[in-house]
Amino acid sequence: MKESRFMLRAIELARKGELTTQPNPMVGCVIVKNNTIIGEGWHQSYGGHHAEVEAIKSCKKRFGAKQALKLLQGSDLYVNLEPCSITNNTPPCVDAVIRYGIKRVVCGTLDPNPRINGAGITLLKKAGIKTAIGMLKKECEALNRIFFINQKKARPYIILKAAQSLDGKIALRDGASSWISNSLSRQDTHLLRARVKGILVGKNTALSDNPNLTMRLDYKQLGLKKNTALPQPIKIILGNLTDVKSTKNLFAKNAKVIIGSRGAGLQKRNVEHIQYLRKNFLEEFMQDLLKRGVTSILVEGGQETMNAFISNNLFDELVLYTAPIILGKNSLSGFNSESPIKIKDASALKLQKVETFNSDIKATYFAGTLN
Amino acid sequence: MKESRFMLRAIELARKGELTTQPNPMVGCVIVKNNTIIGEGWHQSYGGHHAEVEAIKSCKKRFGAKQALKLLQGSDLYVNLEPCSITNNTPPCVDAVIRYGIKRVVCGTLDPNPRINGAGITLLKKAGIKTAIGMLKKECEALNRIFFINQKKARPYIILKAAQSLDGKIALRDGASSWISNSLSRQDTHLLRARVKGILVGKNTALSDNPNLTMRLDYKQLGLKKNTALPQPIKIILGNLTDVKSTKNLFAKNAKVIIGSRGAGLQKRNVEHIQYLRKNFLEEFMQDLLKRGVTSILVEGGQETMNAFISNNLFDELVLYTAPIILGKNSLSGFNSESPIKIKDASALKLQKVETFNSDIKATYFAGTLN
Repeated sequence: MKESRFMLRAIELARKGELTTQPNPMVGCVIVKNNTIIGEGWHQSYGGHHAEVEAIKSCKKRFGAKQALKLLQGSDLYVNLEPCSITNNTPPCVDAVIRYGIKRVVCGTLDPNPRINGAGITLLKKAGIKTAIGMLKKECEALNRIFFINQKKARPYIILKAAQSLDGKIALRDGASSWISNSLSRQDTHLLRARVKGILVGKNTALSDNPNLTMRLDYKQLGLKKNTALPQPIKIILGNLTDVKSTKNLFAKNAKVIIGSRGAGLQKRNVEHIQYLRKNFLEEFMQDLLKRGVTSILVEGGQETMNAFISNNLFDELVLYTAPIILGKNSLSGFNSESPIKIKDASALKLQKVETFNSDIKATYFAGTLN
Repeated sequence: MKESRFMLRAIELARKGELTTQPNPMVGCVIVKNNTIIGEGWHQSYGGHHAEVEAIKSCKKRFGAKQALKLLQGSDLYVNLEPCSITNNTPPCVDAVIRYGIKRVVCGTLDPNPRINGAGITLLKKAGIKTAIGMLKKECEALNRIFFINQKKARPYIILKAAQSLDGKIALRDGASSWISNSLSRQDTHLLRARVKGILVGKNTALSDNPNLTMRLDYKQLGLKKNTALPQPIKIILGNLTDVKSTKNLFAKNAKVIIGSRGAGLQKRNVEHIQYLRKNFLEEFMQDLLKRGVTSILVEGGQETMNAFISNNLFDELVLYTAPIILGKNSLSGFNSESPIKIKDASALKLQKVETFNSDIKATYFAGTLN
């Protein structure tokens, strides 16, 4: 059996925290002695124990404290991300790793956080612990794309979502766009909403659709522990809202709303308006969102907004639902960006996953690199 | 175990003839005694034995002629299509079924050929054989869509093929369309070509691209017996060709070409020109193709041609390769048909299969019904 199976298991464990760890990364940890797993754990939610500590705890629980101490001594630890060297909500993990006499630490990637980035490894080495970095690096990076983008690009992870006909149309000429995708696809978009900290639409979409922009799945549908409620994503509007009546669903239940626009903005309880001077303030707006804890956003339209993100090359993931219909020449195209001069100039996305919902196809593409 | 597994096996066997049975249907046959398969076979190629006879032969080969006769007596026979009651290249299958004392015949569907359609079953019943029709009917119909369309609509089975960007564009404004899809996708289109008896393009595509329109896979790549050569599909042009020089690849190696157009047409060896009086002669052209043995065609473009088929609702399958690029607002849309008034009015295709070739997605849709 290959050693990488332990890292695969760490990744599998890490993923259990997908909906609850942001702004932290997902981390899973496996401790191995004589080729056998003696402890495993994952970072379950922001503020909670880190994966390494959870793995040590699980070893104690399984073997009893005394036997666990013996087993941990001289063991190997696999973790998708470098153990942290700083105190945030919890003491640094490297301390625990050193204290329990772990002999070797294998990480998928370094921590991209500039305050750590290698510092954890340095401390481990100083304590005489063997280290290896880069096992299943690509998989470990893909797992924590949100965290890597946050750290490296100082902005939220940006997911663009669109539902289109198979000829690339998102609406009829009159703007009608309901029921392009089927009910299973529409249900699935709530899973996308559950993955993010904010949902963004342009002001035109806000005004014409009066959307709720809420995530409407319960803990069962999300695969969470009983009665766990995920906080609703923050609602984010690109462009100022003047007419509050026709967007009243946005403000229902005192939901938190952030608006970014040029010029003066809407004043309202629970609404934060961020004003920009530059015409193209999108990147700045994104950076300001991260400063406010919005580590990931889902951009749901409409066409102009979508194309602003595409034209500025400001997106990390594109999720495209394609319905099995042709909407023809008079309908609205979903993408309206400038064309490349040559086909080879068009920047290619990377297809990550294809799913089907009856006759709808959901394609998930990754854009750009993490560096 | 369910009885339907025998029909599934018959379908599986039938499919082995996919590339070689046209204009005949694919047929597989399984003979069962005491819940055990004692013989199986399939129609291997046009002109060869039918599946029922192959299954009886296989039983004899396996058990010896004497023992086979005993076993076949009182056995059950599963076949995806009604056994034929007429002599074409071979004697009617019902004769063999009766002669060998088979007790019960289970068919997936009746034969849609109006000269048979139930006549085979009637003969079996008259001979005192039990019959059951409709087991895995949908699967059996899907297997032989080409044959059903030929029989019921008196025209070839029509597959539309397009390669587009994820925003539904098939070319840049200057017409450049090479390298939208990747090399694996382009290789795969030769498998599509192998499935059909004709490849159709519009005259503009013929003139601008000077295509070969040949199928360039050998027996190994097609999964055929050693040194089997599939006949090349006939090349079919919609609209008259005036300039023969810029389309010389079409006529290479004396390939057979059929041209359909209004007005007088090109006179050339191996070229058949069919002249039409009506402006919209597409359906008539299709019927004339079937009369010439073209049971299936692949329509490869360009945009005008594609939309003629879509607007006339003349297609049975749409194969769409989607590349992970955005070609933007100045590029050419693949589909240019009239838009529906409401989204619900758009006729929905049925997604049949999704495959991926690196970051390209291949989606196969079925259109319309078989009735």
